Amino acid sequence: MHASQMPPFRSELPAIAGDILARIRERRPRVHCITNVVAQNFTANVLLSAGAIPSMTVAPEEVAEFVARADALLINLGTFDLERRDAAEIAIEEARASGRPWVLDPVFVDRSRPRTAFAKELATKKPGTVRLNAAEFAALTGGAPERDALTRFALDYGCVAALTGATDRVTDGTRLIQIDNGDPLMGRVTAMGCAGTALVAAALAVEGDTTAATAAALLAFAVAGEVAAARARGPGSFTVEIVDALYGLDRETLRTRGRVR
Amino acid sequence: MHASQMPPFRSELPAIAGDILARIRERRPRVHCITNVVAQNFTANVLLSAGAIPSMTVAPEEVAEFVARADALLINLGTFDLERRDAAEIAIEEARASGRPWVLDPVFVDRSRPRTAFAKELATKKPGTVRLNAAEFAALTGGAPERDALTRFALDYGCVAALTGATDRVTDGTRLIQIDNGDPLMGRVTAMGCAGTALVAAALAVEGDTTAATAAALLAFAVAGEVAAARARGPGSFTVEIVDALYGLDRETLRTRGRVR
Amino acid sequence: MHASQMPPFRSELPAIAGDILARIRERRPRVHCITNVVAQNFTANVLLSAGAIPSMTVAPEEVAEFVARADALLINLGTFDLERRDAAEIAIEEARASGRPWVLDPVFVDRSRPRTAFAKELATKKPGTVRLNAAEFAALTGGAPERDALTRFALDYGCVAALTGATDRVTDGTRLIQIDNGDPLMGRVTAMGCAGTALVAAALAVEGDTTAATAAALLAFAVAGEVAAARARGPGSFTVEIVDALYGLDRETLRTRGRVR
Repeated sequence: MHASQMPPFRSELPAIAGDILARIRERRPRVHCITNVVAQNFTANVLLSAGAIPSMTVAPEEVAEFVARADALLINLGTFDLERRDAAEIAIEEARASGRPWVLDPVFVDRSRPRTAFAKELATKKPGTVRLNAAEFAALTGGAPERDALTRFALDYGCVAALTGATDRVTDGTRLIQIDNGDPLMGRVTAMGCAGTALVAAALAVEGDTTAATAAALLAFAVAGEVAAARARGPGSFTVEIVDALYGLDRETLRTRGRVR
Repeated sequence: MHASQMPPFRSELPAIAGDILARIRERRPRVHCITNVVAQNFTANVLLSAGAIPSMTVAPEEVAEFVARADALLINLGTFDLERRDAAEIAIEEARASGRPWVLDPVFVDRSRPRTAFAKELATKKPGTVRLNAAEFAALTGGAPERDALTRFALDYGCVAALTGATDRVTDGTRLIQIDNGDPLMGRVTAMGCAGTALVAAALAVEGDTTAATAAALLAFAVAGEVAAARARGPGSFTVEIVDALYGLDRETLRTRGRVR
Repeated sequence: MHASQMPPFRSELPAIAGDILARIRERRPRVHCITNVVAQNFTANVLLSAGAIPSMTVAPEEVAEFVARADALLINLGTFDLERRDAAEIAIEEARASGRPWVLDPVFVDRSRPRTAFAKELATKKPGTVRLNAAEFAALTGGAPERDALTRFALDYGCVAALTGATDRVTDGTRLIQIDNGDPLMGRVTAMGCAGTALVAAALAVEGDTTAATAAALLAFAVAGEVAAARARGPGSFTVEIVDALYGLDRETLRTRGRVR
């Protein structure tokens, strides 16, 4: 059964996440990532551990061809050079033309006004999902991520808004899912949020209900984080363990650990 | 005894690989790598664990100087920006002028035509070894990597062709070595193939028989992968373990695990 | 008690390092890093494990804004592209204008003359600390890092000179601290020195005595390296363990392991 067939799906999200992970492992979707250089290696390894196939080129003369052969696109603004901005625009145009889902991660827009302006422009280009934290949300909207503001963001841009933090909140403007999983060590490793957004892109490649796919991917990543934290001694071993945990994540673990409201 | 003194060397490849690893550890060759940004850190760490000294600059005004002070050169096309293409041409010119071996890894040429064209151009510049997978081989030659096609590729370009996959096949057009080692987890970590090619470059720095050096490096890397897989819980720990395994790889492990035809 | 209150502080350096680590963990200083692409991910993770907050952008139009919101700046010359050189100059200007400490790591200046020239120019712009190894020192000064030469370097540039190697030596031209901690495995992982310099920048963000901050950071990093080496099987696990060790490093370990002359 597909997630899209069951709108009030909070209690079923762990099972949906199990389905989506199974589909990623079976279909091995290609995810083209225009992401920051700090995050590239870890993002690629998180995608591979989940079963997806990453590619990362930003060269303007070949990015459209890569996107055309991919199943989903990730745009992460963490590295803000001219080449990546050009590549992002070409890639989004190709994704829209060929009907592929794409996801926006406006990393650090709270630190730089040119980045904020660029993120706002991209957000109007119909991303499936925008994943951001409270500071980034404030930079884009001018306010705190209260429930109403988050709903308005989703409706204004016609996207799923995924606000991550101690509790992750996902909304399409109608449905709201809150996920209480995760571990503080996730904030002690660089590119953890970036890699989580890449997993959202992989989920969008195999599930047409963008809201379900987004929430399922964030749930799976947060539960993997909990499993990893239980085995880790610090952020170094945590980085290793979360990749292993995602690789081995099963329905039973999602069911028993998932805390979804 | 040098590998070049024993042409039909399949059964002796584990011993040759042990010799070459010992020379890398002792001589600590410098390997200059023009490689993709996703692979840089892992490639550097694989080279260091084997005993080689990596450098990675792509700045056009200094790359020739780095190559002139290196013992081997790696050209990996995984990041295809203009600066890297310029750097690759300068570096290859310097390597050829000063008689240093160089290795070509035409990553993802199957995904992009500009990349295919550039790879074909570089392949005519006398690389010691071209390392590629079946899809990349097809993009460059228009056909499947049958034995005859691989032989022709090696003879046409005057290089050693190293086709990696479940079985690695290495040929100079006359000799053919097949290596059945490795583990599926090697396909679940980004840049694993890139790092393997870097190890080939390190081997070329200490062994004049390019065919033996190439096969020995691929054997050592694949056996390290098997040792790592036996200790790993998933792709995260596998990434750590393969670096440790290469660092500690000994002749006995190469001898007992090596499966060479 | 602040380090600056006790000039001949060799025997107290472990306690000072414990204080500085505690302040980094509590205040969570922001460290903007213009560093090489090979080092970026590991550097970010080392800073995060210590409690600092890294940022890494090199885009000329936003780097000043990032530095203005940071508490310290790291300039590492390991990637020597035009964009990074521009970014370095903008960032240093901003750091000086706003009174933020900055640290210079002239990586690989011994391999390339353009890099040497650029490093010499930057060294005149009042870095708090210059961290370098013997080969890099020779490239910048034309001579070996004898005690007098190191003193002269510190006095000429008005900086703290931190020469790392089997023994780390830190001097401001008046005081000299020698640290005998560390492990050979630190030389078998890429970007280990780069990450150590980043930790120096984090220390400068929370301690006004640049000499004490520099020596304390190098001591903490070297002791973490020893703890990691005791747990590691090779360079792969060592990379993981040093991040965990820094995260968990306590006063007692610094006190019992610290070897400071």
